[in-house]
Amino acid sequence: MSRLDQQMTFLQEADRLKSVLRATTLGDGSRMENSAEHSWHIALYALVLAEHAETPLDTGKMLKMLLLHDLVEIDAGDAPVFGDHDAGALAEREAQAADRIFGLLPDDQAQLFRAIWDEFEANATPEAQFAKSIDRMQPPMQNLASGGGSWIDYGVTHEMFEARIGPRIDTGAPKIWAWLQPRVAAFFSGRG
Amino acid sequence: MSRLDQQMTFLQEADRLKSVLRATTLGDGSRMENSAEHSWHIALYALVLAEHAETPLDTGKMLKMLLLHDLVEIDAGDAPVFGDHDAGALAEREAQAADRIFGLLPDDQAQLFRAIWDEFEANATPEAQFAKSIDRMQPPMQNLASGGGSWIDYGVTHEMFEARIGPRIDTGAPKIWAWLQPRVAAFFSGRG
Repeated sequence: MSRLDQQMTFLQEADRLKSVLRATTLGDGSRMENSAEHSWHIALYALVLAEHAETPLDTGKMLKMLLLHDLVEIDAGDAPVFGDHDAGALAEREAQAADRIFGLLPDDQAQLFRAIWDEFEANATPEAQFAKSIDRMQPPMQNLASGGGSWIDYGVTHEMFEARIGPRIDTGAPKIWAWLQPRVAAFFSGRG
Repeated sequence: MSRLDQQMTFLQEADRLKSVLRATTLGDGSRMENSAEHSWHIALYALVLAEHAETPLDTGKMLKMLLLHDLVEIDAGDAPVFGDHDAGALAEREAQAADRIFGLLPDDQAQLFRAIWDEFEANATPEAQFAKSIDRMQPPMQNLASGGGSWIDYGVTHEMFEARIGPRIDTGAPKIWAWLQPRVAAFFSGRG
């Protein structure tokens, strides 16, 4: 196979991410969101909101992370944040998926993309930390728009949200969490 | 409205791009593709294939173009390339859509994003030319995967494809067109 053959095989395999459904719906509640359109949406979030990071970010690198970050779900599936799953087993499935899917590319590009994915997963650089926080704040935005969405489906309370999601947004994007927190509180207060 | 209020309004409005359907299907033919997941897919195409451009590209700028380029379809709809439409009227609708949608952002960011969109539309820089060619070569890839797709729906012949699409891929990405052209020819030959 030529270099372009390998790249096109990877790009056609990537198409399958459009059929991986998430726990969140579109903002209008009409259907479940898929992981490909979610990846586009959070890349747009990151582009629009990067100015609110605590340190200047390499936006290009962050966009690459967000375009690539969910490809492993083609094999490993989406794991809803309030669902029941074995974190160790999931990490193992995702690592195997990364081996297979990035391995469709020419070796040098496979290594480059894998390094970007590893950097996102390791959550240690400013770009990864901001990107991860954005990935955590888009679903609440969808739920606020649709009137509850996955919070209702998974029986999520305000306390659960504050314990499991709040800190994960706050750590990489505190200014954005400061904006979102009272809006989420108002939603749960209105239901309670 | 605060700066973040304006940005979040824009990001929630962008969600509607997930409900704009295109003429092409997923590679497995299971349903029509929407413009949000298409935007993700071609950003990934551009990231993987940028090395085949004729001149070195600013990949970050190109990714921004591709993330933003279809937002106008929220108001103006998707215009299938083999469909019947008035190009002048479409351009006018898209310009009005760009005014409204980018206008949801803070002024400085609205101007910045509009400039990126204008650069893509003007098709005069290497990044815009490569991005436009990528935008034209992903639908044939979907059609090859699904066994015909929009070519069948719109009665497209090999001659029509060579006349209307080939030059638009070749102009910005000749190496990629050289790879794709014989594969498209083989598809139509197999049907004829």
